[in-house]
Amino acid sequence: MNHEISIPVDGQGLYDITARVAEVVASSGAGEALATVFIRHTSASLVIQENADPAVLHDLEHFLDRLVPEDEALYTHVEEGADDMPAHIKGALTQTHLSIPVTGGRLALGTWQGIFLWEHRHRSGRRSVVVNLLGGT
Amino acid sequence: MNHEISIPVDGQGLYDITARVAEVVASSGAGEALATVFIRHTSASLVIQENADPAVLHDLEHFLDRLVPEDEALYTHVEEGADDMPAHIKGALTQTHLSIPVTGGRLALGTWQGIFLWEHRHRSGRRSVVVNLLGGT
Amino acid sequence: MNHEISIPVDGQGLYDITARVAEVVASSGAGEALATVFIRHTSASLVIQENADPAVLHDLEHFLDRLVPEDEALYTHVEEGADDMPAHIKGALTQTHLSIPVTGGRLALGTWQGIFLWEHRHRSGRRSVVVNLLGGT
Repeated sequence: MNHEISIPVDGQGLYDITARVAEVVASSGAGEALATVFIRHTSASLVIQENADPAVLHDLEHFLDRLVPEDEALYTHVEEGADDMPAHIKGALTQTHLSIPVTGGRLALGTWQGIFLWEHRHRSGRRSVVVNLLGGT
Repeated sequence: MNHEISIPVDGQGLYDITARVAEVVASSGAGEALATVFIRHTSASLVIQENADPAVLHDLEHFLDRLVPEDEALYTHVEEGADDMPAHIKGALTQTHLSIPVTGGRLALGTWQGIFLWEHRHRSGRRSVVVNLLGGT
Repeated sequence: MNHEISIPVDGQGLYDITARVAEVVASSGAGEALATVFIRHTSASLVIQENADPAVLHDLEHFLDRLVPEDEALYTHVEEGADDMPAHIKGALTQTHLSIPVTGGRLALGTWQGIFLWEHRHRSGRRSVVVNLLGGT
């Protein structure tokens, strides 16, 4: 029912993880179900957004950068770097989890919807995501 | 377990879809369950907000309009109109899905809570929403 | 499957309710499951954030206070006080519900993740939260 997947990230940006989630759904054999994607971090988050035009992802990131500037003068939690507190705020304004219905064995996403991991830190590394599946064949 | 509903929209605004979701719950016969509402679009979203005073909905919309202006100079994704990229951003700042417990056959909403589809584009049309029900009698 | 818990609050702030939710999970005996936490209000909300440094919570609150000022000139819904409409907006920008996988009988939270009730009103009182558990042993 729960499957952990590890996502490599290389600095800030939106990483399309739709295929990774779809793979868990397909290999589970679930027909009608609910897939819940949960990220086990507080400085990266999840969002469903347009998967067609990369300019959408650029503009999303640019907007959030302007809204939550990496300016240490604005924050008291600065020990982990100028990008850390903004990362927490960006995480709070987006999602820690997403639930998506599964119909006919497939994620019921709209044509233009992709599932993205939104990395808010500059550093590289790996992020842990749990996919939970509830339902039946 | 999954029921698709189609919601007519006529430009920007918050559309109360509580009755449509409640109808799916009632006709399912579920007693104790979890209802998940999922919108299959990236330029409209979902939110649970106060259903009593229309001024709350007006102020919510006005706030988000000021936060995410329809000013093409701010964005690179502008081919689909000045309201398109702001619609994606507004979608990312609100919700693509909502899960609500069902107790005694009814949505466990608070007295003042309504489920709203938040349309962020100016045009008219229809939006597709999937209601997933998990649980039993 | 559904358990209502009542959380005392004493004005604005982030209240760690992780232990309360974990207690419901533990007493249910669920092994592999999905825990959904739902708040039955529109002027308080939920968020998963860092539970280690209180400065993170301070900065989160400070950011949202600057973004959504308690200035009646900005809103039309002002009958319930200068903090009411900002509370609704803050609620819309954060979460009404959170779903967290349960593995091995425990919430699959990351090391630094806590579940917080975010009270946006100044007054004291109690907030009602429903914990829904789906899954099995």
